Amino acid sequence: MIPRYSRPEMTAIWSPEAKFRIWFEIEAHATSALAELGVVPKEAAAIVWDKGSKAVFDVARIDEIEREVKHDVIAFLTHLAEIVGPEARFVHQGMTSSDVLDTCFNVQLVRATDLLLADMDALLAAIRRRAFEHKMTPTIGRSHGIHAEPVTFGLKLAQAYAEFDRCRERLVNARREIATCAISGAVGTFANIDPRVEEYVAEKLGLAVEPVSTQVIPRDRHAMYFATLGVVASSIERLATEVRHLQRSEVYEAEEFFSEGQKGSSAMPHKRNPVLTENLTGLARMVRAYAMPAMENVALWHERDISHSSVERMIGPDATVTLDFALARLTGVVDKLLIYPENMQKNLDRLGGLVHSQRVLLALTQKGVSREDAYRLVQRNAMPVWRGEGDFLSLLKADPEVNKHLSDAELEEKFDLGYHLKHVDTIFRRVFGEA
Amino acid sequence: MIPRYSRPEMTAIWSPEAKFRIWFEIEAHATSALAELGVVPKEAAAIVWDKGSKAVFDVARIDEIEREVKHDVIAFLTHLAEIVGPEARFVHQGMTSSDVLDTCFNVQLVRATDLLLADMDALLAAIRRRAFEHKMTPTIGRSHGIHAEPVTFGLKLAQAYAEFDRCRERLVNARREIATCAISGAVGTFANIDPRVEEYVAEKLGLAVEPVSTQVIPRDRHAMYFATLGVVASSIERLATEVRHLQRSEVYEAEEFFSEGQKGSSAMPHKRNPVLTENLTGLARMVRAYAMPAMENVALWHERDISHSSVERMIGPDATVTLDFALARLTGVVDKLLIYPENMQKNLDRLGGLVHSQRVLLALTQKGVSREDAYRLVQRNAMPVWRGEGDFLSLLKADPEVNKHLSDAELEEKFDLGYHLKHVDTIFRRVFGEA
Amino acid sequence: MIPRYSRPEMTAIWSPEAKFRIWFEIEAHATSALAELGVVPKEAAAIVWDKGSKAVFDVARIDEIEREVKHDVIAFLTHLAEIVGPEARFVHQGMTSSDVLDTCFNVQLVRATDLLLADMDALLAAIRRRAFEHKMTPTIGRSHGIHAEPVTFGLKLAQAYAEFDRCRERLVNARREIATCAISGAVGTFANIDPRVEEYVAEKLGLAVEPVSTQVIPRDRHAMYFATLGVVASSIERLATEVRHLQRSEVYEAEEFFSEGQKGSSAMPHKRNPVLTENLTGLARMVRAYAMPAMENVALWHERDISHSSVERMIGPDATVTLDFALARLTGVVDKLLIYPENMQKNLDRLGGLVHSQRVLLALTQKGVSREDAYRLVQRNAMPVWRGEGDFLSLLKADPEVNKHLSDAELEEKFDLGYHLKHVDTIFRRVFGEA
Amino acid sequence: MIPRYSRPEMTAIWSPEAKFRIWFEIEAHATSALAELGVVPKEAAAIVWDKGSKAVFDVARIDEIEREVKHDVIAFLTHLAEIVGPEARFVHQGMTSSDVLDTCFNVQLVRATDLLLADMDALLAAIRRRAFEHKMTPTIGRSHGIHAEPVTFGLKLAQAYAEFDRCRERLVNARREIATCAISGAVGTFANIDPRVEEYVAEKLGLAVEPVSTQVIPRDRHAMYFATLGVVASSIERLATEVRHLQRSEVYEAEEFFSEGQKGSSAMPHKRNPVLTENLTGLARMVRAYAMPAMENVALWHERDISHSSVERMIGPDATVTLDFALARLTGVVDKLLIYPENMQKNLDRLGGLVHSQRVLLALTQKGVSREDAYRLVQRNAMPVWRGEGDFLSLLKADPEVNKHLSDAELEEKFDLGYHLKHVDTIFRRVFGEA
Repeated sequence: MIPRYSRPEMTAIWSPEAKFRIWFEIEAHATSALAELGVVPKEAAAIVWDKGSKAVFDVARIDEIEREVKHDVIAFLTHLAEIVGPEARFVHQGMTSSDVLDTCFNVQLVRATDLLLADMDALLAAIRRRAFEHKMTPTIGRSHGIHAEPVTFGLKLAQAYAEFDRCRERLVNARREIATCAISGAVGTFANIDPRVEEYVAEKLGLAVEPVSTQVIPRDRHAMYFATLGVVASSIERLATEVRHLQRSEVYEAEEFFSEGQKGSSAMPHKRNPVLTENLTGLARMVRAYAMPAMENVALWHERDISHSSVERMIGPDATVTLDFALARLTGVVDKLLIYPENMQKNLDRLGGLVHSQRVLLALTQKGVSREDAYRLVQRNAMPVWRGEGDFLSLLKADPEVNKHLSDAELEEKFDLGYHLKHVDTIFRRVFGEA
Repeated sequence: MIPRYSRPEMTAIWSPEAKFRIWFEIEAHATSALAELGVVPKEAAAIVWDKGSKAVFDVARIDEIEREVKHDVIAFLTHLAEIVGPEARFVHQGMTSSDVLDTCFNVQLVRATDLLLADMDALLAAIRRRAFEHKMTPTIGRSHGIHAEPVTFGLKLAQAYAEFDRCRERLVNARREIATCAISGAVGTFANIDPRVEEYVAEKLGLAVEPVSTQVIPRDRHAMYFATLGVVASSIERLATEVRHLQRSEVYEAEEFFSEGQKGSSAMPHKRNPVLTENLTGLARMVRAYAMPAMENVALWHERDISHSSVERMIGPDATVTLDFALARLTGVVDKLLIYPENMQKNLDRLGGLVHSQRVLLALTQKGVSREDAYRLVQRNAMPVWRGEGDFLSLLKADPEVNKHLSDAELEEKFDLGYHLKHVDTIFRRVFGEA
Repeated sequence: MIPRYSRPEMTAIWSPEAKFRIWFEIEAHATSALAELGVVPKEAAAIVWDKGSKAVFDVARIDEIEREVKHDVIAFLTHLAEIVGPEARFVHQGMTSSDVLDTCFNVQLVRATDLLLADMDALLAAIRRRAFEHKMTPTIGRSHGIHAEPVTFGLKLAQAYAEFDRCRERLVNARREIATCAISGAVGTFANIDPRVEEYVAEKLGLAVEPVSTQVIPRDRHAMYFATLGVVASSIERLATEVRHLQRSEVYEAEEFFSEGQKGSSAMPHKRNPVLTENLTGLARMVRAYAMPAMENVALWHERDISHSSVERMIGPDATVTLDFALARLTGVVDKLLIYPENMQKNLDRLGGLVHSQRVLLALTQKGVSREDAYRLVQRNAMPVWRGEGDFLSLLKADPEVNKHLSDAELEEKFDLGYHLKHVDTIFRRVFGEA
Repeated sequence: MIPRYSRPEMTAIWSPEAKFRIWFEIEAHATSALAELGVVPKEAAAIVWDKGSKAVFDVARIDEIEREVKHDVIAFLTHLAEIVGPEARFVHQGMTSSDVLDTCFNVQLVRATDLLLADMDALLAAIRRRAFEHKMTPTIGRSHGIHAEPVTFGLKLAQAYAEFDRCRERLVNARREIATCAISGAVGTFANIDPRVEEYVAEKLGLAVEPVSTQVIPRDRHAMYFATLGVVASSIERLATEVRHLQRSEVYEAEEFFSEGQKGSSAMPHKRNPVLTENLTGLARMVRAYAMPAMENVALWHERDISHSSVERMIGPDATVTLDFALARLTGVVDKLLIYPENMQKNLDRLGGLVHSQRVLLALTQKGVSREDAYRLVQRNAMPVWRGEGDFLSLLKADPEVNKHLSDAELEEKFDLGYHLKHVDTIFRRVFGEA
């Protein structure tokens, strides 16, 4: 996570200020719950809420205390006591640091995911708009980078929409994975704290109760969370790669928006480079990489060790901030993408009709030619076209073995573009619910 | 995937024989659908089913053809034509190889997941049985590898149960991710094949229709699938690591079953090593590693490239076979685990009562001592015990500052083990639905 | 590692037969050393060598024994005793299984690396040949997929040569990392075996002595080894990606060799796809993935645990066999690559001279125009060309502000291709030692 | 990279100030070279050096310009022109941004590596000191976490020393990999800049010339670099894991230094946790993870794309800062490690003499008992000891079949600790060059 690839709303979630505020809320809710259970005085809880809500926690002061006690939660509680006064002794009763830390981390991840979901909605809206705009814009479909058969540019975007729609659902699942709360004490036995405190705090924070925690919330949840972000990032890479390909000089069917004043290259003034999508490709590599340490974090020793902590201090912000930035950047790219239908048509025509080879193949088999023979007939007329030696339709017409089965008119009918686009509506209805 | 870490039922899913059988079913179902739509003669479909169902596909023959045509599906279709005769020309009409390959791969993954789910059920059953068996067996809870406070061995297993129950649900989600079928032709436009063929085949194979495919089924699905296996593997590593710790010479609270005739070490006849769980730790690393190339597979070029294929030929079998083996091995470990409650008790007693330090701390604060003072009082009596210089209870009793607030009887009450176990039933009910 | 992506010579290194033969050699050399030290009778060592050298080790028999004793080295030694007779009791004296296993694994890795080095030499030779063949074949250099300035096809290959030459050196370093031998007993103290035995065996096997082993050879060596293979694989991916780009329909500057009888697509007979290099891209992902578990293997517990073993049983063969196959496949691709200089020229001309924009920029600054102004002048003439609205040279000539500084003749001189190629020889000399 | 896990000297290398200073030096050296070649006026170069050396580059101002031109090097050059005045037009002549960026990145990596090497030297010194201090402190060697045979604590550290010594050499290699300079222009052809400029700048900066660059320095170098850091991190994890094991309550043979005022747990005042080494375990996961995107960066498109850049903006600082911190932290841990020889002795005695089982086994075979029989004899006496039912030596003496071959005196001799330590000096000499 670096400023260049960060957006303020997501970064704020990971600020010390936000963290201490969440810590306070967890502690204060727990104190309220204890007050309701009669364990601590109700007035104490009221004072904690009152003074804590008004206070601005002094990050520098907390850091100073931590340098002495070498324990962040104790440092915070010490500072809280400075603010709240003697009633502070009713705070954190029967709790352990991880009750605060783990629940806070999950609150942060939940909030982060809510931003990611909003990002995703914006991205989906942008893709949908451009997909309908170019629903029937013909373009060549390519497999292996080689021209295959016609598709539409809208179909390309429909694919992307369906993919990110799945990613959205995955994010929803991932959010559920980590939306839990644990207030279960030193080794998760509730020895010193009533399980109803956990239920109370969980409800107040909009979290589920962690069924069994062991000082820590189990890290398989977080592994699943960060692995999901890695998959979302990979889908970003896919669409980014598509744009990079489309912007290639030789293809030039689409282009990232290029603002006035922007310079593509310090040395070559003519350059307009797909730098945003190349950037997204790199960012995707990063988000993906963070899945690995998250998985290694699962196997904590016994009831817990703290090896996961340094990892999460990094990948918590790094993965969510980077993915948030990437989703927003991709949304901008899609939204403002310059699309060149005339170049798409030019490329469609480039192979001299070869993209219709399959239709000819099928027509021959339907006339009773064996598949093997039909394949051979088509291939022998395709190869000269490939080498730039002629036009596919003319060659086919001139091939007596082909002509024996297919008349000129029948052959010409096989070169109709509309044939390929007749089910675009079907696919759009599947993906968007309408066409 | 190597024989040593493979089980036959899972391996069989990935055999050429199984693959060609699925290919046949996809092709034959598609031919039936075409026959229903009147595109090909119904008798042709009947003959395909009849001859294909009776035939044993000759893997060596198919390989031989492939060596010539360098294309596996064409090789299969050529062989199928040898079996079916002239009606074979109605097979694969309007389809592309990937319709067969991708749908087949998903069928294989679905079947593999069904085995994994059965494995998981067996594992959950074993953990549950041992958890209830040791629901109230006291043992020391450890954070950072250091004795913390008492838990029960059943609680440890309840945690594992809850974790693998989540893994089960993740596998169900992962199965849904990849349970799709695509029969959409060369670039996914259904140019040469009616979308109803896809619907027909999908239904027959128990799959969902892929809303938009582009010759290939999008690989974000598979990325999510293999990432999920990586998370499950990480949970296996966690429980395996727990057993390894428990079997350490100094801990020795549990032990992998050691059969008669087994030799722990060629050099040291006394050794009984946790080799199964160490092995599981290594296998987990492998399954986890396969998630990374699966994620890199997502960003195929344009409508598709074939870079994913070599990856999947490896990780398809490697990840599922290894995970199947690992789950079964772990089930055996749990099922037959030798558990030593008396050693757990010995370890519980090892720290001279220090594990009760928190209760004393809380009791002091409840008597009005500030948290900071209470902490200091407890710590100064704990440190000599830690160094082996005395018994915690005696030292506390002898500390006048402590004694001022807590009588001997009050102190003794704080050393009661039952205090820690009073909510075990609550947790069991959360996890197992009963206690 | 699957047969489809395997070559027999490398696979043979990992066969059980090869492994048991190496085990025998280690044991027999150690027995010889013990005989020289007078610990065991010289005749015994002679008999071991004699009978063992003649014997074919029965893999099925060893497996059968292992199923009983659950220990592979003991199983082997038992089988060896069946072959050698009573003198077998002098074998493995004071050794531990890992002395055999780890030294054997390193012998296998050394042999595998020797094959990889031979592969690399063949690849380098192929690249060199093609590089000189096309040393002066002009082609457009592309940054960001956008035409930049002219290079030659030979330069592209010179870059690949330099990169694989570095990879070769890395492999040599990696080989050195794992070319060690340990015969140090149960925990590496030589308690029961003289260090001179280790020295003897190491020398016989062409290995260095492991300075300090702890039953196992430390796994940082293997981590470095497999990480290196991952880097080599990444370089393979780079060249493979280049070929895939060059073969794109719109670029079509080079093409994988396409044999007679080969079928590019079952549906589209005209297709010629870069399937080999796409395949290499996938294989690279796999080899790279194996680096991760190799790194996780380093942190074995105390003197050793066996978690690395299952990982290495997989990645030992998987990584080396796959990389060997990939290097050989890439060599074939380079060797037979179809290269189309005329298409390169066509692409060079595509941007209407824009690729010379930098020279114009520089010329303007040399005439005293500020860099900022020069940039603006060039960019404003480049943008119309980019949009297909005119020819760069004509537009520049017609721009009075440009014309003020550069005459028509001066401008024309800036469009000379030879200008860009004047240092090709310099680079070739740096890379190949000659030009 | 977060402040908590950062050290100022390493962080400073990655500051914008340091970066712009290096950019300036590269540009200014290049201008000097151009002046020597007579391409630009010598006075211009002198003015650039003079004004630039005195200037403090204004990061905020550069950022402001970059927001407009969206290009960082152009922004810098614009700012430099503000400082230098009209002579600025002689700067960057014939160069491309990447000449500056890539050479700068390598300079930063070289400086970072120099810090890492200094860290490594400090770590090696600390390990060496403690190794000699405990050269002959007996402790139990453990395989699989199970007591095996005696070693010394010094031997454990000798192993660590040898491992980090290898890591040091790997860092030296990694430094060489990335210590290159490229000043080769837009696509690496030196079209607009003389190769002698590159040679001049390289020499001034203490770098090697990159033999062939293609606008960018090839990223296989960086992949190798970051992979190497990942291996070093894995070795850190190994030693950290060792300490964590040794500090376990049941083992307690060593302990991280615990300062006055430090609190192990907010809830449990008695806790002293190995938090530093747990932290190192997590940090190792991070550094390892960064190797993966570095490897994915290798396959840039054609002469270059910029996808590597976002990755490197993150992992450049993240990997080096984290590793620097980790090495320093580990050095502190080793340096101040509390070592408890008496507890080591206690643990050595724990298994009732079982650790001598191999010697008895060997003695029996030397008396003519077959290996299989000897193994059985030893194992049958070991198992009761394992179960806590008796003392190994007594049981062996009482076993008539054992007694037939080994007298009581002979048996007793097998239980001598010194036997295991006789080659410690040999190993120390191998590792440290002295004993």
